Amino acid sequence: MTKPSLFTIISPRLLDLYNIQDAIVVVIDVFRATSSIAVALHRGCKAIYPVDDVEYALKLATELNAISAGERDGKIIPGLMYGNSPSDFTADIVAGKELVLTTTNGTKLIQQALKLGAQEIITGSFVNLSAVIECITKAQKNVYLCCAGWKNRFNLEDFLFAGAVIDQVKNNFTIHCDSSLNAENMYQLHKNDLKQFIQLTTHWHRLNSYHNVAEDLLFCVSPDVAPVLPKYDGVKLICQEL
Amino acid sequence: MTKPSLFTIISPRLLDLYNIQDAIVVVIDVFRATSSIAVALHRGCKAIYPVDDVEYALKLATELNAISAGERDGKIIPGLMYGNSPSDFTADIVAGKELVLTTTNGTKLIQQALKLGAQEIITGSFVNLSAVIECITKAQKNVYLCCAGWKNRFNLEDFLFAGAVIDQVKNNFTIHCDSSLNAENMYQLHKNDLKQFIQLTTHWHRLNSYHNVAEDLLFCVSPDVAPVLPKYDGVKLICQEL
Repeated sequence: MTKPSLFTIISPRLLDLYNIQDAIVVVIDVFRATSSIAVALHRGCKAIYPVDDVEYALKLATELNAISAGERDGKIIPGLMYGNSPSDFTADIVAGKELVLTTTNGTKLIQQALKLGAQEIITGSFVNLSAVIECITKAQKNVYLCCAGWKNRFNLEDFLFAGAVIDQVKNNFTIHCDSSLNAENMYQLHKNDLKQFIQLTTHWHRLNSYHNVAEDLLFCVSPDVAPVLPKYDGVKLICQEL
Repeated sequence: MTKPSLFTIISPRLLDLYNIQDAIVVVIDVFRATSSIAVALHRGCKAIYPVDDVEYALKLATELNAISAGERDGKIIPGLMYGNSPSDFTADIVAGKELVLTTTNGTKLIQQALKLGAQEIITGSFVNLSAVIECITKAQKNVYLCCAGWKNRFNLEDFLFAGAVIDQVKNNFTIHCDSSLNAENMYQLHKNDLKQFIQLTTHWHRLNSYHNVAEDLLFCVSPDVAPVLPKYDGVKLICQEL
């Protein structure tokens, strides 16, 4: 049997170079959108509406009587109820509620994938690593690991997550992709010092310069602390049964 | 004294995210444009006109009474005198002559950098590694290491060259750039098995499937076998004195 293919896409700018339609698209924004998404759903949030526009986020949250949250350029947006930290989304706040989320990179990438015809979009971060691995291993479909990066620039934390996935699934896929080979190499190189190495990345420094979020960011690279599979149904992210 | 900055740009698609105007732009297309450019100049070619259009290449070569060469999709173009292999450019063929060159990735990237306002463009490959290092170390200007990739996708051979440069110059620059950190890590990981590892890359397999060019590609990752500095003067690449 022919194995399905796996590719790693290192910037949203390169998404349209790939044929993502009939495949599973894994949107990755470790710092912090896809970490927060998994955590909120794990803590009982009913659904998350990822939107790419702040004004629309505020309007939709009012209409749905939902929680609003998000950031721009790593900073809190006036008018939204919460920021983009997983620690914002305690069970007290999110259980049984809906959440409208808008972020600089991650939620935009979901919208971009949708516009390019993606039919199956899930989100991944270290916090739900095993759930992503289980999903794509079972599915027998082509997979695109899509790194959100920072304003279209390359980010190591998203890439290392891609590497962590590839490390586990590589025997199940045909992988002819330099990005994937690189990602796996980098993950192998740093899997034992991940929480130290991640502190050298640009996004770590950027976020930490705005607010002291070291603990928050270390949480985002903790494997399987929010073991759910967020799946996009075309409008909202909900927990998918594994 | 503040050190100048160094960035690595992993795809031509990301070039406009950076302010490349008042900086040295190093165009990198190891397989094979920037290897061939250094080799041709080293073997006595007077000047190389990198153009992004085949028809224009043919016209210009006729006008200048120059040699014409190039490839599209890794294949020879009917009408051009030579392909894009360094081995095409022996001293017998190029010494004292001018060359018009058009390729899928490298010559296009030079034109793209020019359109974005780059004022100082040089080309780099392993074959002229030390010349590139000497140039950017002396210049005391910001540096952008620009990987040509393959049709805007990420390529490891170009990235490893960026890593080889960074390995030598990192103490002379301020480097806050995940791409550069990654490139240097990958170079460190593979510098002792470069000629084996490079055979795992997608571009190696692509080119070798068209013609048996293993020897040619191994030559392209051989350090300093064509120790010249090709510099673009706005129209053509010529040897720059170091």
